[in-house]
Amino acid sequence: MGNQLKVNVAVVGATGAVGQQMIQLLEKRNFPIDQLKLLASKRSAGQKVLFKGQEVTIEEATPESFVGVHFALFSAGGAISKELAPHAVRHGAVVIDNTSAYRMDPEVPLVVPEVNMDAARKHNGIIANPNCSTIQMVAALKPLYDRYGIDRIIVSTYQAVSGAGAQAINELLTQTRDILDGKEPEAKVLPVSKLPVHHQIAFNAIPQIDVFTDNGFTYEEMKMINETKKILGDDQVLIAATCVRIPVVKGHSESVYVEFKNDYELEEVKSLLAHAPGIVLVDSPEEQKYPLATDSADKLEVFVGRVRRDLTHPRGIHMWVVSDNLLKGAAWNTVQIAEELIKANS
Amino acid sequence: MGNQLKVNVAVVGATGAVGQQMIQLLEKRNFPIDQLKLLASKRSAGQKVLFKGQEVTIEEATPESFVGVHFALFSAGGAISKELAPHAVRHGAVVIDNTSAYRMDPEVPLVVPEVNMDAARKHNGIIANPNCSTIQMVAALKPLYDRYGIDRIIVSTYQAVSGAGAQAINELLTQTRDILDGKEPEAKVLPVSKLPVHHQIAFNAIPQIDVFTDNGFTYEEMKMINETKKILGDDQVLIAATCVRIPVVKGHSESVYVEFKNDYELEEVKSLLAHAPGIVLVDSPEEQKYPLATDSADKLEVFVGRVRRDLTHPRGIHMWVVSDNLLKGAAWNTVQIAEELIKANS
Repeated sequence: MGNQLKVNVAVVGATGAVGQQMIQLLEKRNFPIDQLKLLASKRSAGQKVLFKGQEVTIEEATPESFVGVHFALFSAGGAISKELAPHAVRHGAVVIDNTSAYRMDPEVPLVVPEVNMDAARKHNGIIANPNCSTIQMVAALKPLYDRYGIDRIIVSTYQAVSGAGAQAINELLTQTRDILDGKEPEAKVLPVSKLPVHHQIAFNAIPQIDVFTDNGFTYEEMKMINETKKILGDDQVLIAATCVRIPVVKGHSESVYVEFKNDYELEEVKSLLAHAPGIVLVDSPEEQKYPLATDSADKLEVFVGRVRRDLTHPRGIHMWVVSDNLLKGAAWNTVQIAEELIKANS
Repeated sequence: MGNQLKVNVAVVGATGAVGQQMIQLLEKRNFPIDQLKLLASKRSAGQKVLFKGQEVTIEEATPESFVGVHFALFSAGGAISKELAPHAVRHGAVVIDNTSAYRMDPEVPLVVPEVNMDAARKHNGIIANPNCSTIQMVAALKPLYDRYGIDRIIVSTYQAVSGAGAQAINELLTQTRDILDGKEPEAKVLPVSKLPVHHQIAFNAIPQIDVFTDNGFTYEEMKMINETKKILGDDQVLIAATCVRIPVVKGHSESVYVEFKNDYELEEVKSLLAHAPGIVLVDSPEEQKYPLATDSADKLEVFVGRVRRDLTHPRGIHMWVVSDNLLKGAAWNTVQIAEELIKANS
């Protein structure tokens, strides 16, 4: 990065699970910050957060919060992004939005830096961060897509509760303890807090993430389908997804089946993955080494293993893709986009 | 059943997780038992089990244990079945074996009563019970296979720890409590107790069940592939499986993608499932109703939901299949085979 370039950064949703991870990353990565603005709802205003040893007071996010801000990182829900992102842009900030508000907007690039950083550079003020389950899959598939082309993807996910926020983490832990103590567990948050029916997540698997659409798929599943096409810039890729919440705190796992357009060599696939940016190949079945959600927690990379040739389709392949859903799936991808934009300008 | 027909039943592995379920089922189902023999290792001999209000003493399983036995239900590991099942047959018993010892033996029928009870009737003394993850999938697919034919199946599983026995249940619960209490969890059983490396299952997903084979698939995955073909009596069905252990005590869940040979109507598929023996359709997304592992616990049926048309293949369909792995996946399928054989003879 340029020696002296320093930028003003605003984090909108500074008290949320992802917002907190963003703040930690800005510090750990030694992001070239001049001024840090932490924004949240009126309710949280006045709270203090430690950043590089100094107290930063959380302010209420308003249309005028973004004066002088270079990068506004949004993670406070789609409604807040819809309301405030245009004001941030008006004040000259680049918005990197971690909600679903702008993801499918044709004017807004949807970016995973390892995949389509060129799209990010053509932004009109707003860059969208994809859904967590999409990011890790598309990051893992990109080097293979470039080499072989992809006809088809069928994915089943094993998603951590932290994707549904701090309340969902608390619900999993509380239910788990209640069950171990012989008490009746209470469900009030998952699968979707705003919907009327809630299911126990402790010692269970819930095949619903986000609300259902008319075709029987959930929005989470449709996000994986539509966002993957947009990020790859390829409407022809066939994608099917089943998204499932499991009792894991951090780290989404995905069972991914892919059909390439062209023939492949298994060893070359592994080599491409091993050398791809942001990807770590963990694939030694003989040593029982494969990616695990617990190992991915607090790491920035996407971990890929169980890479094996499908037994029935000549161009089919299976893999197991794991990443920390709050980091590469959210906070890190957002901060990473900002880092890459700064690099390009320095 | 015939009014007065009563049979002598032996349970081999009476102290195991599945053996205990078998004993409970024999009682609950009012199985027409004259004498019940409970057999186990020498170590467990002398223990007493209550059956219909009477104490039954567990005896050591030996080659001569099977004199006068009509049905010998084995669930004490493959080695015991290999050693003792031939003696049971020699003494005239019908063996129903819940281990993998005889499943792929061409002389031994591999049976799910809803699918191929006719094969069971042609036994030579031994009938094999399929692997838990196979049973529930093939039971759900059978009515659809009969109507449309199946070209291809791609399945990812979400399997309960009870499939790995009582030790694995204990490991999940102990690890979970240790983590909640801020202690370091210890892994000594999962994914495969006899292998050198063990992974934490609490708040994790382990993409390994059973040992690896040379092609990169695990034995569990190969069981699903090979057993499904044998049960359907169709070598042409293409099957791929990814088998994953998750922190659930009871109830395997499966994300199943199927390509039929012929066109289908979604409503007809649901109707076929709703009316199929042993299957319960739980499929009202608008009410957030779909099968859940916790709801399947202690039930005999296979639950199917999230039935939806694939968006990319005209004959593709997705579904979510859940069942109690110790019951339909093991003990119940075994007892059910015996019940059906008795019905046929009465």
